[in-house]
Amino acid sequence: MAEKTDPPVILGHNLWGTLTHHCGSDLHHVADGPDRIYMDYNATTPVDPEVARVITDALTDAWGNPSSNYLPGLKARDIIYHSRDTIARMVGGKAADIIFTSGGTEANNLVFHTALEHFRKSKTSAQGDMNSKQLNGSGSLPHIIISDVEHDSISLTAKHLLKEGKADVTSVPVSKVTARVEVEDVIAAIRPTTCLVSIMLANNETGIIMPIKDICQRVREVNKQRAASAPRILLHTDAAQAIGKIRVDAHELGVDYITIVGHKFYGPRIGALFVNDPGTKTPVYPLFFGGGQERNFRPGTENTAMIAGLGKAAELVNLNLAAYEAHFLDIRCYLEQKLLAVFGRDKVHFNSHFPGSDILPNTCNVSILGRGLQGRRVLSTCRRLLASVGAACHSDRGDQPSHILLSCGIPYHVATNALRISVGRCTSREDVDIVVEDLRDTVEQLERMN
Amino acid sequence: MAEKTDPPVILGHNLWGTLTHHCGSDLHHVADGPDRIYMDYNATTPVDPEVARVITDALTDAWGNPSSNYLPGLKARDIIYHSRDTIARMVGGKAADIIFTSGGTEANNLVFHTALEHFRKSKTSAQGDMNSKQLNGSGSLPHIIISDVEHDSISLTAKHLLKEGKADVTSVPVSKVTARVEVEDVIAAIRPTTCLVSIMLANNETGIIMPIKDICQRVREVNKQRAASAPRILLHTDAAQAIGKIRVDAHELGVDYITIVGHKFYGPRIGALFVNDPGTKTPVYPLFFGGGQERNFRPGTENTAMIAGLGKAAELVNLNLAAYEAHFLDIRCYLEQKLLAVFGRDKVHFNSHFPGSDILPNTCNVSILGRGLQGRRVLSTCRRLLASVGAACHSDRGDQPSHILLSCGIPYHVATNALRISVGRCTSREDVDIVVEDLRDTVEQLERMN
Repeated sequence: MAEKTDPPVILGHNLWGTLTHHCGSDLHHVADGPDRIYMDYNATTPVDPEVARVITDALTDAWGNPSSNYLPGLKARDIIYHSRDTIARMVGGKAADIIFTSGGTEANNLVFHTALEHFRKSKTSAQGDMNSKQLNGSGSLPHIIISDVEHDSISLTAKHLLKEGKADVTSVPVSKVTARVEVEDVIAAIRPTTCLVSIMLANNETGIIMPIKDICQRVREVNKQRAASAPRILLHTDAAQAIGKIRVDAHELGVDYITIVGHKFYGPRIGALFVNDPGTKTPVYPLFFGGGQERNFRPGTENTAMIAGLGKAAELVNLNLAAYEAHFLDIRCYLEQKLLAVFGRDKVHFNSHFPGSDILPNTCNVSILGRGLQGRRVLSTCRRLLASVGAACHSDRGDQPSHILLSCGIPYHVATNALRISVGRCTSREDVDIVVEDLRDTVEQLERMN
Repeated sequence: MAEKTDPPVILGHNLWGTLTHHCGSDLHHVADGPDRIYMDYNATTPVDPEVARVITDALTDAWGNPSSNYLPGLKARDIIYHSRDTIARMVGGKAADIIFTSGGTEANNLVFHTALEHFRKSKTSAQGDMNSKQLNGSGSLPHIIISDVEHDSISLTAKHLLKEGKADVTSVPVSKVTARVEVEDVIAAIRPTTCLVSIMLANNETGIIMPIKDICQRVREVNKQRAASAPRILLHTDAAQAIGKIRVDAHELGVDYITIVGHKFYGPRIGALFVNDPGTKTPVYPLFFGGGQERNFRPGTENTAMIAGLGKAAELVNLNLAAYEAHFLDIRCYLEQKLLAVFGRDKVHFNSHFPGSDILPNTCNVSILGRGLQGRRVLSTCRRLLASVGAACHSDRGDQPSHILLSCGIPYHVATNALRISVGRCTSREDVDIVVEDLRDTVEQLERMN
C-alpha cells in the first residue's frame, strides 16, 4: 500500500522546465525532457508546435467576436469555417457535420442528452398512431446500450441516468475471448425502447478496436425492420483514442455521431462532435441555450483560437496519418519484442493480445509477472519511464487493478501488475531501449526487496 | 434595408493583418489596426499580450494530463490551482469556489440546471414533512425570476424551460425610469415555488448596473422567513460585462453564483462559475458526467492553457482595476462630451443616462437623431469606427431596434439609431477624436443622401 500514500518518487524531482518537444516532420526525435521518457500518450499528447503556433496567432490576430459583422468578426468566422472543414474531412464528413464542444466529455454528454430527447419526441409522435403501452412493452424509459469498458464520460453518464430514473441502461460485457464488444451481444440487448447504442471505437487502456462497422450495419437493419412507433436507434462512437492513430470514417463506420477529442491527437483541449447532417438526418438537442452559435446546437462565443488549433491538429492527421500509424506500429512492436527479450516469455503478459482482435498501433498494455510488481509500484520506482496503469482520471484509485482489464478476462494478479505504455509520434527505438532497461532495473530492484 | 443584404462596406477591405495591440501598462496606446478603431469591447476584448504569452507557455510546457500522478500532471495541477485562486480573489471568493467552464453560456446553463435539481430535491425532502399540495400552491413547477434585459444565455435558457414545461419563469421588466430591475418588482414576483433569481450585474448594451446587492439582501430576508418546506431561493448574477470594469465582490453582493467570462476582460474564451462553497453552502448539480475533474461539478480534462490565461487575465484585473476603471470613465466622458459638442444637445440621445442609475464606465449607448441614421446604416458607412448596435449574437437581426433599449423605455425611432460604443484599456482620447470626426462625416454623408 506504500504507493497509495507515499508520493510517487518522481514528484520530488524538478525535472521538467521547458519541454523540448519536436514533432511533425521529425518523428524520431527523443522527446519530453532530459531524463524522463513520456509514454503515456493515451492520457494526453503534447500540443504539436504547429498547433501551438496557430493557437498563438489566432489569440493575437483573430480575437474578434465571430458573431460581429465587421472584419475582425469575419476573420474569426473564416478561421472557424476552415477548421470545421478540415476536422470534418478527418472523419469523412462535411463541414456542417461538425459541432464544436469543450471536449470529449461534453460531446458524449450531448449525445446522451440528445438520445433521451429523441426518445421523448418519438414517443410523443408515436402516441398519435398507437397505444402507448404497446411501445412501452419493455417499460416507458428510454433504453441505452453501452459496453462495460467505456470511458467514465460514457459509463458515469449512463449510470447517472439510470440512478435518476431517466433511462434504462444495458452495459454489454466485452468478450473474454476477444476483449471486444461482440455484435450479437449488442443486438441481443436491443429492446423496443432502445434509442442509443454508444460503443467506443478503441479502448483507452487496451487499445482494442471495437467492431463498430459491423455493429452499425446490424443495428441499421434492426432500425429498418422496426415498428414505425419505436424510436430509431442512434449510433454513437467515442473515437477519442482512435483518431490520429487509425483511419476513422463516419460513413464507412455507419455511425450517426463521433466524439472527437483534440488533446489525444496533439491538439488543444477542446473537442467536437461529428453528427451526420445535424438537425436533418440526425437529431441534436442542445445542452445549452444562448446566443445561437453552432446553429443553436451548442451556443456560446466560439473559442476561435482553440478551434483553429483543433483544425491544425486535424490537418496534420489528414496529411500524415499513414506515417504516424506506421511509426506507432514499428515502435510498439519493437517495444514488445524488447520486453519479451529482456523479461522472457513467461514473465511478460500482453493484456491486449486477443486472437482476431486489432489493437491501436501505439498501445501496449503489459504486465510483468511476479510478486511485488504491481503496476503503480513499478512506475513509481522507474527512473525514466512515464506511463500509467490506466485512464488518468482513475489515477487516484489506489492499488485496485483496472476494471477494464478484469472485464477482458485478465486474471486479477495479472491485471494488478498492468502497465499501459502508449507511444507517440516522437517516440524512438532509442527511447524504447532506455525504457526497457529502466524497467529491467526497476524489476530487479523490487524483486530484491521481496 | 440596404444594410441587411449588402455586406458592410468594411468587409471589402483587407485592413487587419496582424493587430498591433498593446495593453497593460501603456493604457493610451492607439489600438487595433492602422485604419480601424475598435470600440466594441463589450462584444469581445483582445487577448492581453501577457495572457497570450501565458497560454502559449502552458501549451508548450504544461500539456500533461492534470489527473496524471507524475510531474507533468502535477505541474498542470499547480497552474490550475494558481489560476483558480487568482480568479477567486478577483470576485472576493476562495479557490474552492471556482468551477471552470467553457464560457459564460455554460456557466449560466449550469446555474439554471442546478436550480431545477435543487427544487426537485427540496420538494422530495419537503414531502416528508408536509402535504405536497401545500408547497405547490402556485403550481408544481420550479419558478425562476429573471429580468427582461438578460443576455440570450439566460433569457433563452429560461424560455426553453418554460416551453418544455420544466419551469415557470417571470421576466421582470426593467423600470422605464431607471432602466434597472427594481428590488420591489423582484420581491413581488416571488412565489412559494421560486428557486432562483438570476439578474445580470450590468447590462451588455446600456451598461446599466443592476441593484444586485439590494436584491440579494431582500431575497435573503425572504429565505429566512420562508416555510421550511419551500426551496431556498438561489441568487445568481451574470457578471460577464461587469468584471474588469467595476469591482465585483461575491460576499458584498450577497450572491450564491457569479458567471465569469474571460473574453470580456482581455482573457481567453473560457469562463468560470463562482459558487459560494459549492456542494456545501450552495448546491451544484452537474450538467456533465465523466472523469471527476472539478470535483465532479464539471468533469472533462482541464483546458490547462486557457485556465492559465484566465488566471493571468484575473491577475491583471486584481492589480489594475482602479486604473482601468478611471481610464474607461475618462475616455467615455470625453466621448460623450465630444459627441455633444459636434452634434449638439438636440441631436444626441444617450440611451444609458437614467436618473440615479450607474453605468459601466466604458459603455456609451448613443443615438444620433434624424431620418436615415439607423445604427446599422451609420456603422456600415463609418470608415474608422468599429462598434455595434447591440449584442454581437444579435448581429443578424436586421433593422429591428434592440429589444433591450425598448424595454428601458427608449422610443422606437431613437432605439433604431442606437450605437453601442464600448471603449477599452487602450482607447485614447485621440481615438475618440478620430471616431467622432468619422461619425460627423458619416452623418453628413447620410443626411445628404436623404
